[in-house]
Amino acid sequence: MSTQQSQPRRHRVVVIGSGFGGLFATKTLRRADVDVTVIDRTTHHLFQPLLYQVATGILSEGEIAASTRMILKGQRNAAVRAGNVTSIDLSAQTVTSVHLGRTTVTEYDSLIVSAGAQQSYFGNDHFAEHAPGMKTIDDALELRGRILGAFEQAEVCEDPDEWGRLLTFVVVGAGPTGVEMAGQIAELAHRTLVGAFTNIDPRNARIVLLDAASAVLPPFGDNLGSRAAETLERLGVEVLLGASVTDVDATGLTYRDSEGARHRIESVCKVWSAGVAASPLGRQLAEQCGASADRAGRIAVEGDLTLPGHPNVFVVGDMMSLDRLPGVAQVAMQGGRYAARQIAADVAAAAKNRPTPERTQFEYRDMGSMATISRFNAVASVGGMEVSGFIAWVMWLAVHVVYIVGFRSRIATLLSWTWTFLGSWRGQMTVTEQQTIARNALGELHQLRVLDEADDSDGVVARVS
Amino acid sequence: MSTQQSQPRRHRVVVIGSGFGGLFATKTLRRADVDVTVIDRTTHHLFQPLLYQVATGILSEGEIAASTRMILKGQRNAAVRAGNVTSIDLSAQTVTSVHLGRTTVTEYDSLIVSAGAQQSYFGNDHFAEHAPGMKTIDDALELRGRILGAFEQAEVCEDPDEWGRLLTFVVVGAGPTGVEMAGQIAELAHRTLVGAFTNIDPRNARIVLLDAASAVLPPFGDNLGSRAAETLERLGVEVLLGASVTDVDATGLTYRDSEGARHRIESVCKVWSAGVAASPLGRQLAEQCGASADRAGRIAVEGDLTLPGHPNVFVVGDMMSLDRLPGVAQVAMQGGRYAARQIAADVAAAAKNRPTPERTQFEYRDMGSMATISRFNAVASVGGMEVSGFIAWVMWLAVHVVYIVGFRSRIATLLSWTWTFLGSWRGQMTVTEQQTIARNALGELHQLRVLDEADDSDGVVARVS
Repeated sequence: MSTQQSQPRRHRVVVIGSGFGGLFATKTLRRADVDVTVIDRTTHHLFQPLLYQVATGILSEGEIAASTRMILKGQRNAAVRAGNVTSIDLSAQTVTSVHLGRTTVTEYDSLIVSAGAQQSYFGNDHFAEHAPGMKTIDDALELRGRILGAFEQAEVCEDPDEWGRLLTFVVVGAGPTGVEMAGQIAELAHRTLVGAFTNIDPRNARIVLLDAASAVLPPFGDNLGSRAAETLERLGVEVLLGASVTDVDATGLTYRDSEGARHRIESVCKVWSAGVAASPLGRQLAEQCGASADRAGRIAVEGDLTLPGHPNVFVVGDMMSLDRLPGVAQVAMQGGRYAARQIAADVAAAAKNRPTPERTQFEYRDMGSMATISRFNAVASVGGMEVSGFIAWVMWLAVHVVYIVGFRSRIATLLSWTWTFLGSWRGQMTVTEQQTIARNALGELHQLRVLDEADDSDGVVARVS
Repeated sequence: MSTQQSQPRRHRVVVIGSGFGGLFATKTLRRADVDVTVIDRTTHHLFQPLLYQVATGILSEGEIAASTRMILKGQRNAAVRAGNVTSIDLSAQTVTSVHLGRTTVTEYDSLIVSAGAQQSYFGNDHFAEHAPGMKTIDDALELRGRILGAFEQAEVCEDPDEWGRLLTFVVVGAGPTGVEMAGQIAELAHRTLVGAFTNIDPRNARIVLLDAASAVLPPFGDNLGSRAAETLERLGVEVLLGASVTDVDATGLTYRDSEGARHRIESVCKVWSAGVAASPLGRQLAEQCGASADRAGRIAVEGDLTLPGHPNVFVVGDMMSLDRLPGVAQVAMQGGRYAARQIAADVAAAAKNRPTPERTQFEYRDMGSMATISRFNAVASVGGMEVSGFIAWVMWLAVHVVYIVGFRSRIATLLSWTWTFLGSWRGQMTVTEQQTIARNALGELHQLRVLDEADDSDGVVARVS
């Protein structure tokens, strides 16, 4: 620090969030004459699209959540700070973050806000306890415990009537995450776990994928959507469309079908992948600068991804709304890279006493979307071309291997996939005791409810065929 | 089940515990005409000697804790049941276990009890909260969060006085686990994390290995023990011998030296690897059959590892005491295999209407002991031969790779080791939010104490040089 006092102070860039947007922005600034500080609640860069593989025992958390600090160790102008950002002050140009009770105020000259999104239960936050989302490592490990735990519970359960409830898995939301999750639970039940139990047959598991929309994977178009639905059904997944969830509790879920009739599905293990809401920092920023925020809390940014009246504050990824861009990794990466380039250009111009260069608008280059359904089977929509089946799966594989951070993780992931997809071994099925305790609390609740409902429950509850 | 009713009932073997003893016993019975049921609280087979590598970010939990059910999937005569064994009834020949509130009673004809040991705080159970042990996956993940978290906290800490407390790591117990743990924390501080922080230099971390005994690694003998101590000191570990811990709290630890003087070490992150106590099932069994149990709760078994008066009940591994055998994996494996062979021989004789064969006593074949200190450096004592340094490390590597379950885990582990020991990347540094919350609670407690102690604490507390 002492050497810096004699030099003019370097331009300070603060990056909030170490997801795709934040990490790509930081890396893009590696040769710029700036000091970058990355602030994140977690200490890892999470490869969110593969969370479902942690939840279903294919990958370890380390393989998809490398230490941000280790990734950036070689980048001299970048510092990483653990902290939950509680507020941003646009006029004072400061970011306040808290880590384990210690508050830090960080000043910025330029700011890149890429705090992402969290699961949304559309105002029904009490669903969360019974149907965890799929946004964090904790979510994925919790779901791993619940999915594998349901089979374990069924195995020691003497009452065959309970088996149905324990071996029914409901995934709410038929976007890529929901489709991938349902597909992998089906693979677990119909392939990986076959022969591993004595009292139950995992193949009897019922896997339901449910969505209020009328199609699976809407952004992929009708054609790929119906192909995905067919593939899922072949795998043994029931696809229920036009079904709006009205309630979720410990032992099941209620939904309204497209004709308004209510149905209940008895199920201990539910997964929520139905909606997202931008980080609450979004609304905070919108209020300060008078920008509008949409229902999901995303800020309407200018064409150069900045806040109105604040050309030094960029919002990228899942937190911003612009041209109806989807909340996918590519939008965040390209946004982060774009924001970093603008900052680098401004700083370079200032160093040469040139005027701030005029900005070209952010242009998103659609690299296509893809979702795996099961091993050897994916759908991809790339440059107007629609691909499905094995070729799409190979494309999916190649793209994901390229974007996983770190050479070691790439090899390890490929290795895990070889064992999982060619063989039927999953190397990451470990469930911690902490997760078992959480499920235990759930189990007790479950038993209380069963006692409470007594024997008349079957009369009240409609069965879904 | 229906096909079995026409046949005479098969001999039922119940195995309690899926550790080294239980798993080796079950596998040895694979061709015997018996039905084996393995009951364990967790759903994995834990490779305990490598827990410290999970705690220090080298291996994932899946790599050292493969699903027991998946390991035994191919073994037709084996069933796995999740359950915490609460009681054994020697006269009724039943085992009662509970899983998430569901109680199961399992009958046996032969029983192998291999429930292992847990951490012992020698009556000071309140130490556990402040100094987790190293016996379960949860322990290792908790410690991972605390070790890496201490560096993260120091990085955001403005007060240089607090750095000392945050960057002091104390490992209590200089057996193999303690030595390996201290060595790996030193490697983290002096190699892996160098350059990854901005405000702190991880090399300033103080790592203390403390034991009441007068030597490091006592079972390895004076020569190897002092070599290990020297290597540790070269790595930057302070070795404090003849030091008995008298108290552990959130911000530090007090010990009495060999001359009776009391000292305090200020340290937020403490690790306990000082003692073990056999599973409480040990005492329960001892009471029922009149056998004696030692201070650590281990049952004195007969020469054939059975309980007095119960030739069909074997106790193996960390739960039994015989000929002062140590609590190591080899004793459990060989005991499990021996017990399984006796049962198989009895059953085979009965099938041919021959008299029960007379038993040869259990004879332990000492395969030697080894402990790694750091990369490329281990000590090994094999067949009276003492080896240290690189050759011992290669031996350690070979032995551990052989005993890790599953070909995939072996390759993945070798890969992780290559990256960790040749490079300076650790692939499993992910800390969950649940762990951060736990540390947060600790952090608040810590802050309260700091306030409480006010400024006079330095006067009261003796510094260790």
